[in-house]
Amino acid sequence: MSYQIITISREFGSGGRTIGREVAERLGIPCYDQEIIEKIAEESGFSKEYIEDKGEYANHKSWFANAFASSGTSHSASNQDYLWVLQRRVICDLASKGPCVIIGRCADYILEKDYKCLKVFIHADMEKRKQHILEHYGERKESPEKRLKDKDKKRETYYKYYTDTEWGVAKNYHISLDSGALGAERCVEIITEIYKQAQE
Amino acid sequence: MSYQIITISREFGSGGRTIGREVAERLGIPCYDQEIIEKIAEESGFSKEYIEDKGEYANHKSWFANAFASSGTSHSASNQDYLWVLQRRVICDLASKGPCVIIGRCADYILEKDYKCLKVFIHADMEKRKQHILEHYGERKESPEKRLKDKDKKRETYYKYYTDTEWGVAKNYHISLDSGALGAERCVEIITEIYKQAQE
Repeated sequence: MSYQIITISREFGSGGRTIGREVAERLGIPCYDQEIIEKIAEESGFSKEYIEDKGEYANHKSWFANAFASSGTSHSASNQDYLWVLQRRVICDLASKGPCVIIGRCADYILEKDYKCLKVFIHADMEKRKQHILEHYGERKESPEKRLKDKDKKRETYYKYYTDTEWGVAKNYHISLDSGALGAERCVEIITEIYKQAQE
Repeated sequence: MSYQIITISREFGSGGRTIGREVAERLGIPCYDQEIIEKIAEESGFSKEYIEDKGEYANHKSWFANAFASSGTSHSASNQDYLWVLQRRVICDLASKGPCVIIGRCADYILEKDYKCLKVFIHADMEKRKQHILEHYGERKESPEKRLKDKDKKRETYYKYYTDTEWGVAKNYHISLDSGALGAERCVEIITEIYKQAQE
């Protein structure tokens, strides 16, 4: 019954990335996050910023329309599809090296057929997420709420398009936690404990 | 930061009711489930079976259409609304008595403004739920899968209609657990632990 991989899906600003890293640290296994971006950058020649954005977020106003355009001439959609294929391969390669934590990037969907994954979703309420992004990324022209809603929408759209399942729906994860209400430390403990108990 | 109430929302066949009862037992607090039905039955004169069905499930083919019919003559919709008001009152009365676990019936939505609730959602995959309902309720004319999908749809519709929020979406709960993958015992431990730690 032991898990091979922990996948952390998360709302932007929920602190899911930090929670994933801390879980990996406590379990003594690697956490893949920036490594994925770096590997895709190496193989594709695209910048890390471009990959970071295109590898998880669909621009639901332009890209999504392009993706369904009948002309098939959209470079944006083609790049996105190309990055999806690369991302999939990089994630499969990393997973094959042994137990690990993988942050985002549809790893839950990509790996679930071949690995026993503990699928985690981290979320928090709007106020907590606003605080988090202001502390971590500072003020921007757009309000924190607008930035969060926009990111949510893009991530949801991207996930739906490539996996045909719903992002953030409880039944698609083994465990979903409100990091704002429970606290990041408690989330780390719960995930670590579930993983460890299953290895026994 | 201590919680006053634990609300357990659950998919039919996920064992959420049993998990809720066990949590209450370990915490030494009451669990309200059948008590709610009994109190509504006393006050309304309706049978427990009728309340059990109408107090959580919308018949999305007939009732939902009736609820929006312009004639306003639907007795079915009126009974449902009447039961909603009664259910709301009974749940508020029970909550006012002190810490407790409440199973289903939109208690998460009804109580969250006035109480510090730990909102839990329990789900499981289709295979585990099929096994569960066959063991607990036996064979019926309709396939287990059809029964489960029908119940899910009705519960989702009912919840959406009365609370205007989405049932089963992770961000509406503090913690969502897959009882099939994690096991009921592990779910009980996690919920009990979160509640106890918050009291400290």
